[in-house]
Amino acid sequence: MAEPFDPFRYAHEHRREVVWLSQNTNHLVPPEVVRGAMETAIAERRYEGYPRATGEPELLELVERDLGLRGLPAFLTGGGTEALYMITRALLGPGDEVIASDPSYLIIHRFIELAGATPVCVDIYRPPFRLTADAIAERIGPRTKAILLIDPLNPLGSGYPREEVRAIAELAHDRRLTLVNDVTYRDFSEGHALAAEFAPEQTVTVWSVSKNCGLAGLRLGGFSALPELSKRIARFNTNDLGVNILAQVAALAALRTKPSWIGEVVRTTRANGRRVHEVGLGVAGVTAPIAPSRANMTILDIGATGLAPEAVQEELLRRHGVFVRSGSYLSPSHGRQFVRVSFSNPPAEIERFAAAFPQAMAALAGRPVAAR
Amino acid sequence: MAEPFDPFRYAHEHRREVVWLSQNTNHLVPPEVVRGAMETAIAERRYEGYPRATGEPELLELVERDLGLRGLPAFLTGGGTEALYMITRALLGPGDEVIASDPSYLIIHRFIELAGATPVCVDIYRPPFRLTADAIAERIGPRTKAILLIDPLNPLGSGYPREEVRAIAELAHDRRLTLVNDVTYRDFSEGHALAAEFAPEQTVTVWSVSKNCGLAGLRLGGFSALPELSKRIARFNTNDLGVNILAQVAALAALRTKPSWIGEVVRTTRANGRRVHEVGLGVAGVTAPIAPSRANMTILDIGATGLAPEAVQEELLRRHGVFVRSGSYLSPSHGRQFVRVSFSNPPAEIERFAAAFPQAMAALAGRPVAAR
Repeated sequence: MAEPFDPFRYAHEHRREVVWLSQNTNHLVPPEVVRGAMETAIAERRYEGYPRATGEPELLELVERDLGLRGLPAFLTGGGTEALYMITRALLGPGDEVIASDPSYLIIHRFIELAGATPVCVDIYRPPFRLTADAIAERIGPRTKAILLIDPLNPLGSGYPREEVRAIAELAHDRRLTLVNDVTYRDFSEGHALAAEFAPEQTVTVWSVSKNCGLAGLRLGGFSALPELSKRIARFNTNDLGVNILAQVAALAALRTKPSWIGEVVRTTRANGRRVHEVGLGVAGVTAPIAPSRANMTILDIGATGLAPEAVQEELLRRHGVFVRSGSYLSPSHGRQFVRVSFSNPPAEIERFAAAFPQAMAALAGRPVAAR
Repeated sequence: MAEPFDPFRYAHEHRREVVWLSQNTNHLVPPEVVRGAMETAIAERRYEGYPRATGEPELLELVERDLGLRGLPAFLTGGGTEALYMITRALLGPGDEVIASDPSYLIIHRFIELAGATPVCVDIYRPPFRLTADAIAERIGPRTKAILLIDPLNPLGSGYPREEVRAIAELAHDRRLTLVNDVTYRDFSEGHALAAEFAPEQTVTVWSVSKNCGLAGLRLGGFSALPELSKRIARFNTNDLGVNILAQVAALAALRTKPSWIGEVVRTTRANGRRVHEVGLGVAGVTAPIAPSRANMTILDIGATGLAPEAVQEELLRRHGVFVRSGSYLSPSHGRQFVRVSFSNPPAEIERFAAAFPQAMAALAGRPVAAR
């Protein structure tokens, strides 16, 4: 029996030729922003010693300033995902429920389950393609412990208007629920609002330098919350000996200079997003239900084409070296309907997608669609 | 009220002047071993993308070969400590007991407690300064779930003869206990034996590149176990998106070349260890109960001097720029009696300790000892 195609293995084995539109990573930050800082740290052999357990003080200060959450100290973790791992372990227990969505960033749902709790998913695959305070209120029951508010939302690229964030935060406050506000993609979203502004006691804000600063491979993120809540979570710290020192010096260098380059990164990302939608809509049966995206990724709904997203993923990757993701790992209910395309990439790479996508769809349409 | 002295803060603020004998880190690996690999990865902007979730295949292969545990696949984590975090969460629950020691690497004991379990500590501050199969057997009860075997043992520098490892492994096998074999310092120990050799079904081996390869600041380690046990632990993975890519390329470069430089690192470390003992024994009232050390650290017992180890730590750090650790964070019962000194450092740094230690002890002896 032939092994099933492993897109990650294939893409990593061809990593220099592949256009990575698959992981929402950011390839637009000028490398000189971080290179020098890392090279200096290597020359000083800082990799030999442990970093300060709580992180470089200036980095913590920069994160606090960048978020604008004064008085909500930042706690460093090995990526935002690891912050979510700690939060779910610390705050949830058997029988608890967390109101979440489908589609969603499902790794968090698995973390919820590891703690013995259950995600209660609102189906958001219809306008406005995000949670609403009303939809959340309907799901709140005696076991509800928390709300998961990912804004902007991976994988859809939808985002929350300020007034909706306020309404959800007030709901969390009134019902004494923890509000987990994952803002990994917030720099891409115009007029983004942090829930902590409205419900500081209830909110734990999860942030990352993976996407805004283009440092996904270094695994640095964290959470910010009021000291009492932060302490409850920090008890379950997975990084007692601190977070990778090169990640810290790179994040420091990036956040120090971010105001000087983030505007251009966001402008290019948005123009790329429009181009991806245009390309998608050029293929019969494909729709772009969330436009414009408020993040650096979007979905193309291919449900009407009858094609399987795994087939599209494989065809684009193997024949064209363009890596997008099938929706199946992002939505139990709707993942068979869409592919996710991320676009914080040089425009030339987006043009490779633009050339490849119509060809791939045409090639697949000429074949019988594999039954699942 | 004055803030209490924070040695870590002080040492990091003076990091370029301080001699780091405080964290068992290794400063003897030639920097060219890893520098080129990291610089190439930076030039290729690999920090922008996620690494393969399970790790670089060649790195996993090298770890397996380095340990000599064929058929026990390696699982990467953000440092050996994070592997221990996952293991305790995955395998322990409320009411469980783990047989451990005092002194010990107490972070693991805290992880055991986070899982609701209890470390049952054998007092080992007497010859042979380590666990024995007999002492463990006496403590096994109906709630015993695991044995923690740290070999060589941080902080004492004691290690396990092959026959004792075999006896403990057989005990774990016969009583169906998990044997957590933390071998972070194994390269420094002559004739080191892995428990997995004798009880592969029961043992999870925890390894790290922090000490042998001098990469503590990069936070890379992992565990190795048979696939079924490995899978139970991996369910609680804290690194779903993979471990820092620069840590991986550095570990890869170090493990590839390790046979060519590890001998010299170990020889220098051992000579340094003898020198530290000699210096310690030159001060009245100081003993070196574990000699020679089988690791890259040892303790100097200062109990008979009447001095507090925190005072020795502070005096050495502030007046001489030499950072050793007070025992209090390493042993609830005996931590007031010793300081721990690590010595995988250039011999010139050991000479700074050699000059400073007698002076510091004399200076402190001339003062009243602070009551605690």
